[in-house]
Amino acid sequence: MQIVLIGAGGTLGSAVHTTLIGRGHEVVTVGRSSGDLRLDIADPARIAEMYERIGSVDAVVSAAGDTPWKPITEMTPQDYEAAFRGKVLSQVELVRQGLRRVAERGSFTLITGVLAREPVPTGSAASMANGAVEAFVRAAAIEIAPQRVNAVSPTVFTESLDDYGAFFPGMEPVDLANVTQAYVRSVEGAQTGQVYCL
Amino acid sequence: MQIVLIGAGGTLGSAVHTTLIGRGHEVVTVGRSSGDLRLDIADPARIAEMYERIGSVDAVVSAAGDTPWKPITEMTPQDYEAAFRGKVLSQVELVRQGLRRVAERGSFTLITGVLAREPVPTGSAASMANGAVEAFVRAAAIEIAPQRVNAVSPTVFTESLDDYGAFFPGMEPVDLANVTQAYVRSVEGAQTGQVYCL
Repeated sequence: MQIVLIGAGGTLGSAVHTTLIGRGHEVVTVGRSSGDLRLDIADPARIAEMYERIGSVDAVVSAAGDTPWKPITEMTPQDYEAAFRGKVLSQVELVRQGLRRVAERGSFTLITGVLAREPVPTGSAASMANGAVEAFVRAAAIEIAPQRVNAVSPTVFTESLDDYGAFFPGMEPVDLANVTQAYVRSVEGAQTGQVYCL
Repeated sequence: MQIVLIGAGGTLGSAVHTTLIGRGHEVVTVGRSSGDLRLDIADPARIAEMYERIGSVDAVVSAAGDTPWKPITEMTPQDYEAAFRGKVLSQVELVRQGLRRVAERGSFTLITGVLAREPVPTGSAASMANGAVEAFVRAAAIEIAPQRVNAVSPTVFTESLDDYGAFFPGMEPVDLANVTQAYVRSVEGAQTGQVYCL
C-alpha cells in the first residue's frame, strides 16, 4: 500500500516505519524535523499542503502528538489549547482533510494513549487530548465508511521505561513490537471505529 | 451548600436548579442570557470575572456546553475549535480557576453526554468534546483531592424526545429527574473522578 506516516522520527514512529516497510508497503515519512516531508500538523494549513504534495494514498498513519505536562495548578488555558492543537485538532484534520485523498476502503490510524483511561499526575492535558481523539474516532468511523479510522492507545513502552517508567508505577509496559502490530491491524485489516488499548 | 450553577437557563440547567433549591442549597445561577450572572464561559477571562464576583463556594455545577452539529465533510477546523472552547476548555477552566474558590472538600460537576461512547451522524465535534471532558475529569480528580470532580454523561432526555429523538434511534431516553440525581450524587456525595453514564 501507499502509506503516509506522520511522526516517523519518534520512538514509536520509527518502529512503525520499520514494520510497515518490512511488510512491503511504500511509506512517505512526515515529521517536524526529519522525514520526506517536514511540517508541523498542529497547523491545519500545513496538513493541506502535505496532502497537496502527497496526493492519493491508501492509508494515513499517525504517531505524532504533543501535549504539555504540568500539575493542573500550573496549567494555563494556553496549555490546554496547545494540547488540543498538538494532538486533537491535528489528528482530526488528518482525517477530515484526508477524506478526499484516501482510497475508498483506505484507513486512518491515530495515536492516543493509556492516559485516556488511567490518569497520572501532571497528565491532565494529555488525558483530555487522548479522550477527545478516541471519542472522535468512534464518531468519525460511522460517517466516513467505507473509509476507516482507528486509534492505537498504548501504555508506556518497554523500550521507554528508563525515561518514563516513573510516571507509570505498577502499570505493565507494552513492547513497541506489539504496538506496531496494532497499526498493522488497523491498516491491513477491515476494522473501523476501534481503539486498540495495549 | 453555596453552589454556582452554570447553564441554569437550559432544559437540564433548569431541572438541576429546581432540584438543588429543593434540597435546601443556595444557588447562584449563571447563563449567557439569563441568571444572576450573565456571561459566556467559552472565554476563560469571563470565568475569572465570574469567580471574582462570586467568591467562595462549596460546589460548581455545569450544565452548559455548546458544540457544532454537521456532517464531518462539512466541518471546518473552526468548528472543532468552537467545540473545544464551548464545551471542553470552558469546563476545564471552571475547574482550574475554581480550585482557589471551592471549599476543601467541595466539588465540580461537569456535563458531557452519551456521544462520548455512542456516536451519531453529525456529532463528531460533540463526541470529541465529551470524550475530552470525561478523560479530563478522571485526570483532574487525582490531582485536586480532597476537592472533587465528576461528570454527568446522559443520553437523550425523555423530555426532549420530540426535538431530538430522531438523532437517537433505539436508544433508551433518560428522565431529567434521574439526571438531576446524578448531580446530587456528585455534589452531596464523596465520589470523585466518576463519569455518571445515564
